[in-house]
Amino acid sequence: MNFKMIGRFLAQIISVEAVFLIPALCISLGFREWNAVQAFLLTIIIMTAVAGVLWLLCRKAGKLFGATEGMVCVGLSWGILSLLGCLPFWLTGEIPGFIDALFEMVSGFTTTGASILTDVECLSKGLLYWRSFSHWVGGMGVLVFLLAIAPSQGKGFTMHLLRAESPGPDVGKLVPKIRNTAAILYIIYIVMTALCMVFLLCGGMNVLDALCTAFGTAGTGGFGIKNDSMASYSPYIQTVVSVFMFLFGVNFSCYYLLLLKNIRGVFKDEELRLYIGIAVITAALIACNIRPMYGSWGETVRHATFQVSSIMTTTGFATTDFDLWPMFSKGLLLMLMVVGASAGSTGGGLKVARVLLLFKSLRRNIHRLLHPKKVQVVRNNGKAVDETVVDNVNAYLSAYVIILILSFLVLCLDGQSVATNLSAVLACFNNIGPGLDAVGPTCNFALFSPFSKLILIADMLAGRLEIFPMLILLSRSVWRRRT
Amino acid sequence: MNFKMIGRFLAQIISVEAVFLIPALCISLGFREWNAVQAFLLTIIIMTAVAGVLWLLCRKAGKLFGATEGMVCVGLSWGILSLLGCLPFWLTGEIPGFIDALFEMVSGFTTTGASILTDVECLSKGLLYWRSFSHWVGGMGVLVFLLAIAPSQGKGFTMHLLRAESPGPDVGKLVPKIRNTAAILYIIYIVMTALCMVFLLCGGMNVLDALCTAFGTAGTGGFGIKNDSMASYSPYIQTVVSVFMFLFGVNFSCYYLLLLKNIRGVFKDEELRLYIGIAVITAALIACNIRPMYGSWGETVRHATFQVSSIMTTTGFATTDFDLWPMFSKGLLLMLMVVGASAGSTGGGLKVARVLLLFKSLRRNIHRLLHPKKVQVVRNNGKAVDETVVDNVNAYLSAYVIILILSFLVLCLDGQSVATNLSAVLACFNNIGPGLDAVGPTCNFALFSPFSKLILIADMLAGRLEIFPMLILLSRSVWRRRT
Repeated sequence: MNFKMIGRFLAQIISVEAVFLIPALCISLGFREWNAVQAFLLTIIIMTAVAGVLWLLCRKAGKLFGATEGMVCVGLSWGILSLLGCLPFWLTGEIPGFIDALFEMVSGFTTTGASILTDVECLSKGLLYWRSFSHWVGGMGVLVFLLAIAPSQGKGFTMHLLRAESPGPDVGKLVPKIRNTAAILYIIYIVMTALCMVFLLCGGMNVLDALCTAFGTAGTGGFGIKNDSMASYSPYIQTVVSVFMFLFGVNFSCYYLLLLKNIRGVFKDEELRLYIGIAVITAALIACNIRPMYGSWGETVRHATFQVSSIMTTTGFATTDFDLWPMFSKGLLLMLMVVGASAGSTGGGLKVARVLLLFKSLRRNIHRLLHPKKVQVVRNNGKAVDETVVDNVNAYLSAYVIILILSFLVLCLDGQSVATNLSAVLACFNNIGPGLDAVGPTCNFALFSPFSKLILIADMLAGRLEIFPMLILLSRSVWRRRT
Repeated sequence: MNFKMIGRFLAQIISVEAVFLIPALCISLGFREWNAVQAFLLTIIIMTAVAGVLWLLCRKAGKLFGATEGMVCVGLSWGILSLLGCLPFWLTGEIPGFIDALFEMVSGFTTTGASILTDVECLSKGLLYWRSFSHWVGGMGVLVFLLAIAPSQGKGFTMHLLRAESPGPDVGKLVPKIRNTAAILYIIYIVMTALCMVFLLCGGMNVLDALCTAFGTAGTGGFGIKNDSMASYSPYIQTVVSVFMFLFGVNFSCYYLLLLKNIRGVFKDEELRLYIGIAVITAALIACNIRPMYGSWGETVRHATFQVSSIMTTTGFATTDFDLWPMFSKGLLLMLMVVGASAGSTGGGLKVARVLLLFKSLRRNIHRLLHPKKVQVVRNNGKAVDETVVDNVNAYLSAYVIILILSFLVLCLDGQSVATNLSAVLACFNNIGPGLDAVGPTCNFALFSPFSKLILIADMLAGRLEIFPMLILLSRSVWRRRT
């Protein structure tokens, strides 16, 4: 293990986070929130100090960088970024408990959007901005951001980092150079976020609200700036958010193909077709199911599509309390929580691409039972999928189920209902936000014990980083090995 | 597809079922239940007619028999045995609805023990016997029984059937000849059932009750003969049942090793060790958790061990209403439902052996991420496991999760709670019986709609036959192919 290399990298990433805090500081200055200003300043000083010490210790690092280092780097970075990033919440006293502050920060970076706050609206503006901004940068990946702006740091480095931080079973490079891939992704991301913000401003939102809502939508995060999430906004704004959530749940390589005017390639993409198909079918089923609860078909369809778009892309905004919906609709939402958004998007969950591969590898295995002597490969978009990818998708499902069951058990210690515990674990692990019952869209996660919160924090991180970078941190051989 | 061969085989298996009905007929005669006698006689006549017609049509079958035929055979046999076997319940009118009667019969054969009856005690004795007997023959496998007594029917035939009907990721032959393996399994099974019955008789049970309880215990089925399952029996009888349930959840090859006096081999078996380990740890956790609910540690431990033994072996007897237990204990029971008993036992669930392989293949994949160039194999009991077995275990988990989610969704249409629907699917799919909430140990499955019942019937069959023989029946290529 190249610890010095990792240390140097951590120093860089912490510096980036310190820079990210500056706009939040300015907003607090503008609104004369002196308490928050102090907290932000202190946090920036702490970050600079930590980064400085790490840099001095690990300056003379070699250049060797392997897959293991990539994953360890990602796992550690996210842990440290969350630990340092939550300081403003804690130092201002607006979230008094450190574990609660950490929960809120991890929920932000992992784009979960689960909150322990009962009253969001009393938060100072600077913190509100920082909370929503964490969604935005966490959605596309803070390390990917560093890759896009920093000079290349040695062979293999960038690819391993991109692979470890990007969601999905297999990472496609858009262009031969990884650094350019990262830059293209962020440019598309920034343009789409700006577009979303413009639409929101047209709906009459003020600038800060529009910015925060656009961040939450783009990162498919889901932190609201109102206590009732999206319920009090106009149908126009709800529709804008609904559409943009769905767009941010699409694999970003599809947008790159669109830029190259390869429209045929986009519409042939099996994942995109399945993603749209699932969304349309579940929205239709839910609309029929909840029709008696609303006044008109228009309103019904708006609520159904918004919630489907929000849950499937793992955003977690809500326009209505879907915990009051009939059981069938709630069951469909639980299923959407597991499926999640597309690979290579800002959304979470198992990812549609993985579900597709699971179905295909299952079909392959049944065919193999029928024709044991025929060689059978799993195909995706017409191309044969590498067996190790299929293997890893299966291992991913095992790890997913095991973590789900164990987390559920720990939460059961708190004595909440099956629906609460199950949906809380699903909502955190898949980075959605609200669950059902006691953690429904009108409730929050404050009711859990500190230990359960720590488990949910680990679940959120494992869900965002797709399990393996976190599991690897638990492996003894990682810490023993030296290069 | 060798349809004639399958037809001839079905004729044999139906004849065996007709013979199995004779003791039930005798019991009804003894108790002068003329209504039941008529129903049994009519059913036997129908079975003989169906078997006769099939035999005449398919007499001249070839001898070729492959893995596909084996699975189709098993899938069809279980379907037809259930359809014909449920006739007595329906013809007597003691279960008026045909779907309800089918549900009860499938629940019997698959050793689930989920019932739609609100009052078991008013059932006629002959039907009570037939209901419990279905557990016994379903537990070890009715086709395995045929293999043990019938003359060999061509090369490959027996192995493919045994493999398709026996639970677990991989079938071990005890002796070179499959027919002898089947016979040894049934001899151990009969001896242990008899032993269980003797212990029950010593506790003061009457003969018929002891017989039915022994059948339910041996098959890890769980149909009770009292409305309160096992709650009203003496602690002695509860302990006997508790111990025997656990014993019947052990891989039967361990008993064969014991007969060969290879005690070391038994205790080195990784699955057995994990099976005992999980049971002891969960029982201890639950005992501590439920201690305040009972008068003494003795009573607490008795209830905890009984329920753990009952749920883990997927039997489903209950000595107390565990739906009233604290959430943590209920969560542990839900976990045990998924894990299930050992491979090669009469129990259901994922099977401990599969859970072990899933963990090992996950660990292998993590190691492969760390050391991509090293060849890594999954080992069980020190021996390398064939990659197709590992592959199939992973595919099994996918199929398991997919079926679970889809069944859960259908049940949600009925509007019950998350706990009810989830535990109902888990209880049926893993062949346990009682679930939580509205399908808890003091309740029954009558509340579901006929459509939900059909889904649960399919789940029970898929769980008992381990999914693939049922999935293969849905494959078009099976029905198209001709030899």
